[in-house]
Amino acid sequence: MKKIILLRHGQSTWNQENRFTGWTDVPLSKQGQQEARQAGQMLKEQGLVFNRAFTSYLSRAIQTLNLVLQEINQDWIDVHKSWRLNEKHYGILQGLNKTETAEKYGKELVKQWRRGYDSAPPALEPNDNRNPFFDVRYQDVPLAYLPRTESLKDTVERILPYWQERIFPLLEREQNLLVVAHGNSLRAIIKHVKNLSEEELLELNLPTGIPYVLEFDNTLYLTRDYFLGDLKEVQKRMDAVARQADKQ
Amino acid sequence: MKKIILLRHGQSTWNQENRFTGWTDVPLSKQGQQEARQAGQMLKEQGLVFNRAFTSYLSRAIQTLNLVLQEINQDWIDVHKSWRLNEKHYGILQGLNKTETAEKYGKELVKQWRRGYDSAPPALEPNDNRNPFFDVRYQDVPLAYLPRTESLKDTVERILPYWQERIFPLLEREQNLLVVAHGNSLRAIIKHVKNLSEEELLELNLPTGIPYVLEFDNTLYLTRDYFLGDLKEVQKRMDAVARQADKQ
Repeated sequence: MKKIILLRHGQSTWNQENRFTGWTDVPLSKQGQQEARQAGQMLKEQGLVFNRAFTSYLSRAIQTLNLVLQEINQDWIDVHKSWRLNEKHYGILQGLNKTETAEKYGKELVKQWRRGYDSAPPALEPNDNRNPFFDVRYQDVPLAYLPRTESLKDTVERILPYWQERIFPLLEREQNLLVVAHGNSLRAIIKHVKNLSEEELLELNLPTGIPYVLEFDNTLYLTRDYFLGDLKEVQKRMDAVARQADKQ
Repeated sequence: MKKIILLRHGQSTWNQENRFTGWTDVPLSKQGQQEARQAGQMLKEQGLVFNRAFTSYLSRAIQTLNLVLQEINQDWIDVHKSWRLNEKHYGILQGLNKTETAEKYGKELVKQWRRGYDSAPPALEPNDNRNPFFDVRYQDVPLAYLPRTESLKDTVERILPYWQERIFPLLEREQNLLVVAHGNSLRAIIKHVKNLSEEELLELNLPTGIPYVLEFDNTLYLTRDYFLGDLKEVQKRMDAVARQADKQ
């Protein structure tokens, strides 16, 4: 039996401040660091030894991964980072307070930008300093690939090549892989792996800091998927994520 | 002008306890974490953007690198880890208190094991649970490569293939590389780069947490090498390292 563990990063300082983050690079809050260590403890109890780990180019995911690897005494494993695992790009909303945005653009429109499968917030202007083009970390990414906004559909399409070419094929020879990323980048992966409809995807809220296990047989068919840890705690964190969405 | 920055990890919990560490995997002490962050601040003042970073399979070096990259907001860069950058292997001394070891084996013999270029402490027995063979992280390393003790000469010969094949050639196309490792693995690199004699090498004490800069011209000739930061602080930390050696 082979496993890929998906983990959503812990709370960031902007989750705390209720601002749209997307590709903005903000650190974990103290609570987020604690969530990461707890996720590490859950993985330690499973006795999992990972062959490799994957994460995004964003600090809150990388820090979560670092803390998890430290907690399970496996910080020597090979870590691959990719911009393709970044959070959904939120266009002009990035940096704005969610409540104020709802007041300005109307609750319905913002809800659609956030949760509609096909609809994206307005794009950043090319000369906006939030355009990823100006960030040194994306200098080796073809300009045509760099988003200035994204719908969830765009996010799915951006992530799948990396999943299909770099992550999943490794299971042929490896036993356990770890992917630490973001709410929407992980939902994109789950949509693909479980073949969810758009409607099913919109119902899926991933809690922060709770490992989600995908089990595969030796022919790489998905046999089982579940959250680690106490079900009540999982439900509590999923409700918190859903509430945050409702605020808008 | 191209740069390779060498950085020795901050204080570990066993430095504090004055025990031989070698390949034993022990975490940074609080002071060591602080040293790592300060090293990050020094690099930040230089405005360096790194293309890639290298470290060992040992947590105290990996943690130091993680803290440095966080401090300079570059934790998205590519990190390569190798057992070849590990500290010198100290054979049967690993885990023993340095003062007690000096009493048991005599100050002179222990000094020779530690500082003689050619002499190694007695090797671990093959069935000793400290033998790296039993550690999952070395499972992909050919058994014939795995040391059960090392002289400084062995350490130099173990590290050079990695330096010559994996690190140095990257300077052809990259600008700035960062190597975070251990007292003896970094001394081995400096011996090679500066073509030091064995005697000169034995005089070289690297302070913890102070970045050491190697500057190369575009034809990759070494043009300059120096410590970053306040000279008095550098001297203070070098004296501390020398004193620690004297204790034995």
